[in-house]
Amino acid sequence: MNARERFRAPKKLALRDEDAGLTPLREKNGDKNGGAKQRERALTAELIAQVAHLQEMLFAGHKQKLLLILQGMDTAGKDGTTRALFSDSQISPMGLQATGFTAPTERERAHDFLWRIHAHVPGAGMIAVFNRSHYEDVLVPRVLGDIDGKETKRRLAQIRDFERMLAETGTTVIKVFLHISKDEQKKRLQERLDDPEKHWKFDPADLAARAQWDTYQRAYEAAIDATNTDHAPWYIVPADSKTHRNLIVAHLLLETMQGMKLSWPAPKADLDKVKVE
Amino acid sequence: MNARERFRAPKKLALRDEDAGLTPLREKNGDKNGGAKQRERALTAELIAQVAHLQEMLFAGHKQKLLLILQGMDTAGKDGTTRALFSDSQISPMGLQATGFTAPTERERAHDFLWRIHAHVPGAGMIAVFNRSHYEDVLVPRVLGDIDGKETKRRLAQIRDFERMLAETGTTVIKVFLHISKDEQKKRLQERLDDPEKHWKFDPADLAARAQWDTYQRAYEAAIDATNTDHAPWYIVPADSKTHRNLIVAHLLLETMQGMKLSWPAPKADLDKVKVE
Repeated sequence: MNARERFRAPKKLALRDEDAGLTPLREKNGDKNGGAKQRERALTAELIAQVAHLQEMLFAGHKQKLLLILQGMDTAGKDGTTRALFSDSQISPMGLQATGFTAPTERERAHDFLWRIHAHVPGAGMIAVFNRSHYEDVLVPRVLGDIDGKETKRRLAQIRDFERMLAETGTTVIKVFLHISKDEQKKRLQERLDDPEKHWKFDPADLAARAQWDTYQRAYEAAIDATNTDHAPWYIVPADSKTHRNLIVAHLLLETMQGMKLSWPAPKADLDKVKVE
Repeated sequence: MNARERFRAPKKLALRDEDAGLTPLREKNGDKNGGAKQRERALTAELIAQVAHLQEMLFAGHKQKLLLILQGMDTAGKDGTTRALFSDSQISPMGLQATGFTAPTERERAHDFLWRIHAHVPGAGMIAVFNRSHYEDVLVPRVLGDIDGKETKRRLAQIRDFERMLAETGTTVIKVFLHISKDEQKKRLQERLDDPEKHWKFDPADLAARAQWDTYQRAYEAAIDATNTDHAPWYIVPADSKTHRNLIVAHLLLETMQGMKLSWPAPKADLDKVKVE
């Protein structure tokens, strides 16, 4: 399995050619769907257990950093992936920080768009998960017409520079686009309406974004094409199936951490001579 | 079970009278120790599942905040409790932030001692866990003689004021002293020496603090006595048994959240009229 190769965004992304319903890692042995989901959950748990072990080394080493950026349309599963991979993972919250970026506050808008992002990048030994990110600033204002093509291009270049700086200073960056179909989004929004415990998640503004679906897809393609660098690669994850989506992201995360060549740090002193009285 | 009453620090704390080895919630039905530990783990998981449900409401409500402060001597289990309660909890990392406070940096020392703490208090809907806290600033410098009794008293009053302000602005604060015996610490430090994967956690400086055990216990008593307020209560948790310690803290956390009277917030619009196209 080389998920990083398999799901890496192509040079020129066309989201209409990417099937959000694909489940390429699902075994095709005639089992019922329920069995496949269960196996995907179990396999994801196994991969995450390996991630947790590497995370301990990352934390102990207090040197490298890992940043996982999750993007996608509303209901694509940014929250769900974060929860599935990390809430039940044996990864201590001490080594993990998840940040959601909603609409910027007045104070945040008074700064450049990378200012609030920079404040949340991972420190030494940490894993940071971004639920939305600086990419929102080349998506929403672009679709709403608040910035033109020239400004969008300038911001995308600024993002490339910023991410290169992060990589050069010890941060491994991976970026995941959770790709759902318009039909799947309809189903999920309807589920939020049908479940009183999910009403708080339903924002009528989401319907306005849904109405501009194609424009958002084009904005994503442009943003991903412009920032799909080797030091901060984009992965396109088919996300109509939640369990399969989690499995792919778990593979990506594990392979990325295996590539970081982590090891236990040397002790702070010659411990052979230490005696506890 | 009323853990908040049972483990609340007394008006005048004398740690030598508190038995760190107590396991008052352990059933005394002649079972082997292994069985008791297993039951404590299972019961803790049940309590934390309830915590996770309340945390969802807390997060959805985006109004109240919860701050859990963990203090204790080295190896008392601040990391371990954080991991046991939250790494496997179904609580999304989006709603949880754990911060460890080590020795202050130069920039932090250039500010008042509450400055770096304030930056990490929970925002609306969040649970924050402090692994060490502003209490370090009335412990370490006091023991090392860097501040005198008068300055210690001033800082303790500043802490009371700060915590009252947090409470008045919607933060529920609970403070837990993980109480271990000196013998248990010896055992745990020795375990770190014996396990190569734990060498990175062993800091020879811990031995210096251990040598001043009694002085630290006195400093803790003074700090706890002075700040054991109803709006930010201290709990003394016997912590020589890890599973029993986790069980008590889980009880405290759950009872505290039950006391917050959380509920699902009203939806953002009249959802009866909404139709997803």
